Amino acid sequence: MDVQGSQVLGKAEALALRYGADAVPAAGPWTEAISLLLSHRSVRGYSADPLPRGTLQTLIAAAQSAATSSNMQTWSVIAITDPARKAVLAKWSNNQKHIEQCPLFLVWLADISRARRLGEAEGVTLEVLPFLETYMVAAIDAALAAQNAVVAAESLGLSTVYIGALRNNADLVAAELKLPPGVMGVFGLCVGYAAPTAANEVKPRLAQEAILYHEQYTIPDETSLRAAYDAKLGEFSKRNEMTSDTWTARVIGRMGKVARLGGRHRLRSMLNALGFPLE
Amino acid sequence: MDVQGSQVLGKAEALALRYGADAVPAAGPWTEAISLLLSHRSVRGYSADPLPRGTLQTLIAAAQSAATSSNMQTWSVIAITDPARKAVLAKWSNNQKHIEQCPLFLVWLADISRARRLGEAEGVTLEVLPFLETYMVAAIDAALAAQNAVVAAESLGLSTVYIGALRNNADLVAAELKLPPGVMGVFGLCVGYAAPTAANEVKPRLAQEAILYHEQYTIPDETSLRAAYDAKLGEFSKRNEMTSDTWTARVIGRMGKVARLGGRHRLRSMLNALGFPLE
Repeated sequence: MDVQGSQVLGKAEALALRYGADAVPAAGPWTEAISLLLSHRSVRGYSADPLPRGTLQTLIAAAQSAATSSNMQTWSVIAITDPARKAVLAKWSNNQKHIEQCPLFLVWLADISRARRLGEAEGVTLEVLPFLETYMVAAIDAALAAQNAVVAAESLGLSTVYIGALRNNADLVAAELKLPPGVMGVFGLCVGYAAPTAANEVKPRLAQEAILYHEQYTIPDETSLRAAYDAKLGEFSKRNEMTSDTWTARVIGRMGKVARLGGRHRLRSMLNALGFPLE
Repeated sequence: MDVQGSQVLGKAEALALRYGADAVPAAGPWTEAISLLLSHRSVRGYSADPLPRGTLQTLIAAAQSAATSSNMQTWSVIAITDPARKAVLAKWSNNQKHIEQCPLFLVWLADISRARRLGEAEGVTLEVLPFLETYMVAAIDAALAAQNAVVAAESLGLSTVYIGALRNNADLVAAELKLPPGVMGVFGLCVGYAAPTAANEVKPRLAQEAILYHEQYTIPDETSLRAAYDAKLGEFSKRNEMTSDTWTARVIGRMGKVARLGGRHRLRSMLNALGFPLE
């Protein structure tokens, strides 16, 4: 197996790596693009190699090609390469060193300020701006755009990792990036070449039976599905992360205590202060 | 130009279609996968042709390969093919007929109920469940997954369109789909073969200068960027939609009045009732 992801896997191998040999779904038609999607790995260590000229513009063209609700384009993105600024953002994002290592750090923004400026210029009040729905649209559209950028990056042999911990201190991030009211950093994204030491396998996911339902929501036999996945993820973490945690233990570890939110229990008040009333 | 998107465009053509010849960004490295992303169009008319066997499983394998925060996998998806159910969902989604036409309608769910059941089975209270942050993670992860499914579908020659109007009546949708507390339909997605009558060009987006910033948020000359885009989108809508609306007019039309939210001004209270306290 090519752990760097530069080799296109066949359908059978790609599915077996993603689900384990015992849980391969009965997938149908296939393309090389789908193999690329299946081979995704989040990478948390980067080499110092710079990106080819114009890579940023390529990634953003892919991002802007994603669907956006009613073509409103209520998202923006900030490209950060300054080492000092990356260090500050890393510190506020639970000290994730890969933010400092990667040559390009993208901060994806829910941005309703451009629409507000449009309304002001035209002398029109946009009544929908204060609503939770409008924030949702902006955050979801930022996510769709970012995922297209991830696919584009991986097709170029680059690696990425999302940084949700950017929300730990969304208020400080907004001040550092001089975000106007109505703009919020939804997440970060490291982009770069994987360091040789950061190579890892495709991470197995829950079996399709655990997350895909037909016609209505029907809870499957989660006890047995979870036991099978716990065993699989335990083996994966032993091989790749020098721990041996089950999925059950990880979910409880991550969701059991409010302290593990790293400050994100304040998200609602931070958003209110950043110009999102969330009505 | 091949309006069906089955032909892979070259870099120059793909960029010119997406931005207009006067606003092509200085993009760098390129791949066929990136051409695929650039050629995206949302399609609102479908033929009755069925999908090849196993297509659903292929799309979900792609979706599950997207990143998910801390591997928590707080999303699920319901595949709907029953005509009667599609008709009901279409009615509640602003009467969008393509929901009835498409052979496969996917409802993407923010789902914190699986984690809650895990906690209950293990006798542990998951303290983070009531927070807005946890809902955000679930909705964003659903969006990342869905976008991978879209890319996979388009690589197979299928077309898609997101249905944000599924949130117009999130409460009724939840009842119809028998969603347990802690599960919410974030958006729908039509999947199928484009009807010949639904062929349309790639929709131009704002110039990169309007949405991409460097190091910090810097408002560009939005007056001139918007005027250029208004002209471009007016021409596009004349050619493709038998109207001639500027972007400015569309944003004001969509965001000016609360009534245009189609019920989504109630999103916060609907979410509260569906088991998301959004603390």
